[in-house]
Amino acid sequence: MAKILITSGPTRQYLDPVRYLSNASSGRMGAALAQAAIDQGHQVILVSGPVSIEYPSQATVIPVVSTDDMLRESSRWFPQCDGMIGAAAPCDYMPKFIEAEKIAKTGQPLQLQLIETPDVVATLGQAKQPHQWVVGFALESEDRHFRAIVKLEKKHCDLIVSNGPAAIDAERNEVELIDPSGAIVTKITDTKEAVAQHLMAEIQRRLIDQTVPPHRASNL
Amino acid sequence: MAKILITSGPTRQYLDPVRYLSNASSGRMGAALAQAAIDQGHQVILVSGPVSIEYPSQATVIPVVSTDDMLRESSRWFPQCDGMIGAAAPCDYMPKFIEAEKIAKTGQPLQLQLIETPDVVATLGQAKQPHQWVVGFALESEDRHFRAIVKLEKKHCDLIVSNGPAAIDAERNEVELIDPSGAIVTKITDTKEAVAQHLMAEIQRRLIDQTVPPHRASNL
Repeated sequence: MAKILITSGPTRQYLDPVRYLSNASSGRMGAALAQAAIDQGHQVILVSGPVSIEYPSQATVIPVVSTDDMLRESSRWFPQCDGMIGAAAPCDYMPKFIEAEKIAKTGQPLQLQLIETPDVVATLGQAKQPHQWVVGFALESEDRHFRAIVKLEKKHCDLIVSNGPAAIDAERNEVELIDPSGAIVTKITDTKEAVAQHLMAEIQRRLIDQTVPPHRASNL
Repeated sequence: MAKILITSGPTRQYLDPVRYLSNASSGRMGAALAQAAIDQGHQVILVSGPVSIEYPSQATVIPVVSTDDMLRESSRWFPQCDGMIGAAAPCDYMPKFIEAEKIAKTGQPLQLQLIETPDVVATLGQAKQPHQWVVGFALESEDRHFRAIVKLEKKHCDLIVSNGPAAIDAERNEVELIDPSGAIVTKITDTKEAVAQHLMAEIQRRLIDQTVPPHRASNL
């Protein structure tokens, strides 16, 4: 039995008390991965942005709003986990300034300065201990395979799942699972539930079963 | 029996195939107004942005994504309606340029140029015929009463509902209903369902019952 942290859903970055930047991530892939992990006998902690789907009742759900929130909660729970799967689509840009009051319309264009948010998977990938593993997701609209490999390396992932914008808020998904050598481990086109079961089977075989738990490692 | 157009929910303005500007409007106020109108024997057409709530099955629901979509569909259905209630929270800014591919992170800040979207309620308010009425909503975080009166006038509304950011995605709401003289017709703090019933009773008494239908007007 492993303890797995899964990030899921979108995050929101507010400009003012009303308006925010986000994306249409539904949390469906995170929910499907959580269910597949639970079905394999694992324990799941889900750090999730605002979604309207239901997560498996056996999972511990930690609700968050912004990418900073998601990073803070993920960093808090990761040390007690064996691995993490970054299925969330956190906002990667946030307004440099957040207005305390609703920005009033003036009839003029509005210049919005955006800065990058911290990268949740990269931060956890860098912090991981030898007994821990990290699986990332890469969502790209072009150069998918190449960019996924770059992200795998930059974010210190043990595996990365590459998919496209069509995955967002969809019932089905088309993914490639890529290993650190850049090789495509498997390609799956199916419902998110079936994709999740395939991915969890690969994670089980390649990461969970290969990992020497820390208490056993110290006895070697 | 009146035919009522209700706009509901948020809209989304995409920056690229993944990221968008939006707000947390749930569509709950629009759904509650639709139900109250149906309970009074009226026919309802709901033009709604992306929401996860269920609308009353007796309403005709027209799903839209952007503010332009919401304006186009509302303009299409309004001529056959007796009045409209603008309960939606359409994005009032949109990116000047929409990127065809997902904007890649560069490590540098991103300047986003936003321009105003068309105003759905103001456009319909200006186009309304003598037998038609328009009820707007004003969501402000400061100077609520004053700004609501300015909006009522600018958008050619017959009544305006003033509320604050606390209303967004909440079960309850605190509203003021304001008439064209600037007078507060009623103040209500209750569940959105109860607020909707009160508002629809006022709309019935002040607008629907007062309006001479076009076919009767021609006989006078």
